[in-house]
Amino acid sequence: MKESRSKIRNVLFIMADQFRWDYMGCAGHPTLKTPHLDALAARGVRFANAFVQGPVCGASRMSTYTGRYVTSHGSAWNFVPLSVAQKALGDHLLPHGVRCAVVGKTHVEPDVEGAARLNIDTTDGPGRLAMHGGFEPYERDDGVWPPGFTVEDNQYCDYLREHGYESGNPWHDYANSSLGDGGELQSGWHLRWAREPARVAEEHSETPYMTRRAMDFIAEQGDAPWVLHLSYIKPHWPYVAPAPYHALYGPEDIVPVQRRESERQDPHPVYRGFMNYTASKTFSQEGVRETVIPTYMGLIGQIDDQIGELMRFLKETGRDQDTLIVFTSDHGDYLGDHWMGEKELFHDVIVKVPLIVVDPRPEADATRGTVESAIVEAIDLAPTFLEALGLPRPQEWLEGESLQGLLHGRPESRVKDLAVCENTYAFRDVVRLPIGSPVDRCNMTMVRTAEWKYVHVDDLPPMLFDLVNDPQEFVDLGASPAHAAIREQMQRRLLDWLFCRRRITGMAPEKVAGWSAKELEVGIDIGVW
Amino acid sequence: MKESRSKIRNVLFIMADQFRWDYMGCAGHPTLKTPHLDALAARGVRFANAFVQGPVCGASRMSTYTGRYVTSHGSAWNFVPLSVAQKALGDHLLPHGVRCAVVGKTHVEPDVEGAARLNIDTTDGPGRLAMHGGFEPYERDDGVWPPGFTVEDNQYCDYLREHGYESGNPWHDYANSSLGDGGELQSGWHLRWAREPARVAEEHSETPYMTRRAMDFIAEQGDAPWVLHLSYIKPHWPYVAPAPYHALYGPEDIVPVQRRESERQDPHPVYRGFMNYTASKTFSQEGVRETVIPTYMGLIGQIDDQIGELMRFLKETGRDQDTLIVFTSDHGDYLGDHWMGEKELFHDVIVKVPLIVVDPRPEADATRGTVESAIVEAIDLAPTFLEALGLPRPQEWLEGESLQGLLHGRPESRVKDLAVCENTYAFRDVVRLPIGSPVDRCNMTMVRTAEWKYVHVDDLPPMLFDLVNDPQEFVDLGASPAHAAIREQMQRRLLDWLFCRRRITGMAPEKVAGWSAKELEVGIDIGVW
Repeated sequence: MKESRSKIRNVLFIMADQFRWDYMGCAGHPTLKTPHLDALAARGVRFANAFVQGPVCGASRMSTYTGRYVTSHGSAWNFVPLSVAQKALGDHLLPHGVRCAVVGKTHVEPDVEGAARLNIDTTDGPGRLAMHGGFEPYERDDGVWPPGFTVEDNQYCDYLREHGYESGNPWHDYANSSLGDGGELQSGWHLRWAREPARVAEEHSETPYMTRRAMDFIAEQGDAPWVLHLSYIKPHWPYVAPAPYHALYGPEDIVPVQRRESERQDPHPVYRGFMNYTASKTFSQEGVRETVIPTYMGLIGQIDDQIGELMRFLKETGRDQDTLIVFTSDHGDYLGDHWMGEKELFHDVIVKVPLIVVDPRPEADATRGTVESAIVEAIDLAPTFLEALGLPRPQEWLEGESLQGLLHGRPESRVKDLAVCENTYAFRDVVRLPIGSPVDRCNMTMVRTAEWKYVHVDDLPPMLFDLVNDPQEFVDLGASPAHAAIREQMQRRLLDWLFCRRRITGMAPEKVAGWSAKELEVGIDIGVW
Repeated sequence: MKESRSKIRNVLFIMADQFRWDYMGCAGHPTLKTPHLDALAARGVRFANAFVQGPVCGASRMSTYTGRYVTSHGSAWNFVPLSVAQKALGDHLLPHGVRCAVVGKTHVEPDVEGAARLNIDTTDGPGRLAMHGGFEPYERDDGVWPPGFTVEDNQYCDYLREHGYESGNPWHDYANSSLGDGGELQSGWHLRWAREPARVAEEHSETPYMTRRAMDFIAEQGDAPWVLHLSYIKPHWPYVAPAPYHALYGPEDIVPVQRRESERQDPHPVYRGFMNYTASKTFSQEGVRETVIPTYMGLIGQIDDQIGELMRFLKETGRDQDTLIVFTSDHGDYLGDHWMGEKELFHDVIVKVPLIVVDPRPEADATRGTVESAIVEAIDLAPTFLEALGLPRPQEWLEGESLQGLLHGRPESRVKDLAVCENTYAFRDVVRLPIGSPVDRCNMTMVRTAEWKYVHVDDLPPMLFDLVNDPQEFVDLGASPAHAAIREQMQRRLLDWLFCRRRITGMAPEKVAGWSAKELEVGIDIGVW
């Protein structure tokens, strides 16, 4: 038995979208039941301080997929193309014959212009990977189709139609909408309908569909090694759940909102702008949290059940013995906290994510069921996967630090003591226009240690939170005269980080280090008399 | 006559390698004669404060060719590949049918691995441009072949062989070496032979050969528009000139060395390391400057004469009427100043370069023969060329500011008031090993205003020079207690610049600015009740 667990051959990399770190039973949620995620945490390590590198889907995922900070991969926000020349996890796996596929959402904006300019074949091999963040699109589905949009060439929409959900956009009209008493369509884009059941049978909804597709892939692979990114789009909006998950929880089950009236007094201009964003204004209205959050919890319940199904499948197929299992998210959801809806800023409810890692190897026995409090980053996953698979780590590309030391009970192996998260408000008129910033001067960078969170904002004062005395981040000390020294210290850490990031990409460190000797060897001896 | 000068159709972009800004008659050199460069300055504008973005060939040129800072294009030092996905000037010209070619040196390290991985055709179109920094390799020749190396597939070496210079490496054995009294080869790699004449007839040496190839290109183009990068490898070492240029100047013609004994007392560790570099130690020896500099001046004299030939050709063909002419360099040469040889640090003798721009249009008549003192950068050239040609400026790629306002007598159009130059000492064991830095913590970034030069060095104290009171940069104030406020101010400017650089590449600003409206238009209306 021990022997069969001695080697990792596969990685099951599960991500749920917009899934808050504190919405799991094992993370302390008082009413939400997540027995299957809790079981994973019991079998592995739950990271209580895991941070994403971007507070929106695209930037965050591109960091997770490439193992690089946003500054380094350049996809600074949703829909900003990921350069064809960036390498992602799948590119590092390909030469070793490990199939790396996605089922579900990626939010990759492909560099179509770059690929066209360089006449790259995007239908196969690395050219195809470049269009999908390094993944083979086994069943790529980024979902989120606006109402009225006709969806073509989408396997899930075809599946829905095959099962009788006739529509140009069955994703919206069935899976993410409900019916009113008069038979009228109630769009899931409108939060008021969140508590109504979706117009699909549970088995036809997105989460179980994608779970089955993941099983298809795993079964198809047999004993050949793989990395599978199972990427659920839920509990991301539209906040619509199929029966019975729409009614699992009620307003009585939701936790109190984390906000204070004082946050609205003289806020940082960027925070003020985001508080004026539609989603923020809606979530700050009476009754909205009570309508939306029970369904958000129900969607999590459905994911939890599907993870249960998947774990049963892995056990039945024996794949639980040689597969590293990871569960995480790309960012949280304000859900009304801090007078905000959606995401985009840097409060912990957004940038801290759930992270559970199950390593079946005996070396990880000592840490099973433990909670790790060290600060880790989403970019640490790619190097963790490579190390677990016994593959080399391309130092010139990967900027994270493998978690294997922590998983194997060697906390002293950890160097990192801060997390960085980057965003731009350039794309949000409601924030940018009142401030009057040009689009290239809207950068925001968070540096977070165990004690402090500092956010640099171009041309504006920074934000600063004292995480020890104000863990819920109600008091912005960015302009506090008493905290000038802390701000300077955090700015210095940010500067150090920024400079460190200007790494010599495209050249491995050992090649750099060996340069002088090599130069002399080939006769490049400059300045000799 | 006026009418024929009304439109720029071509750009002749001349670069000489390692050509110091102060080695021209028009820049005040007391003995060196450069009548043809002086004539260019009289017909155009000489920029007295033009700075390169890297103090070594590769990084500097990649910035000039791409119009982007080193941090942005990523080719951080010589031989660090320029990502296939980077766009250079030629990529912006290609869609408009303007041929963009190089004759001579580029120092581009092609991203062969990226091209192979993405299966890019590098023999034609943009794939080929990506291998050559955006230039069609009409006659690309990066030269500098070590002794004993057999040179194949090189047009200039073939040309030499055709003219009777039989050798596996005629570049070294003839064009860059001399013969001793006993008929022995005196390699140009060894500075002691600098005053000996090269083993080639002057007409067969590199500078006139490349000039003729430039004429071939221009003649071949006829009336079709072009940008030609004529890129002389001289006066870069090997410091060997053909007769009569080897003897144009003597030790009596050289200017006094710029160095002080105090610079060697307790220097910055990085400066100390570079002072120990072979070339620095050699140039600090008695008699070396007297041997090398006359030949360095002779090589410049030869370039000047060839520029005269080229200008005569342009006039004869009428191309002087519709061609923007630019003369510049990629960096200077210490030549013993500051106890240094070669380059790599940030003294003005390295980072300030000659820059003369001749704009034949009547709009530029008012500035002819003037000296412009505004700080300009090498990355300003690409946008200048595009504007002169009447072509659009891809804002998401180009980080410089067109010089056209200055050329046309509108100094108020200038925004920039600082220059940035970046390097890493990671590749130089003589610097890195005594300090003990890991290769990714060797970054150096210069920020220079009219008054101050500040150099950030990872994990080490900065360097600081007071350019008003110490224009020759003899006193490093990086640790001076009295200058803490200035250092803080310059560090702030550096930080602002660094953040500003994290631009949203791959997406034009107008697309970013229009995002919110577009999102609502297609029905992406998030968080509506």
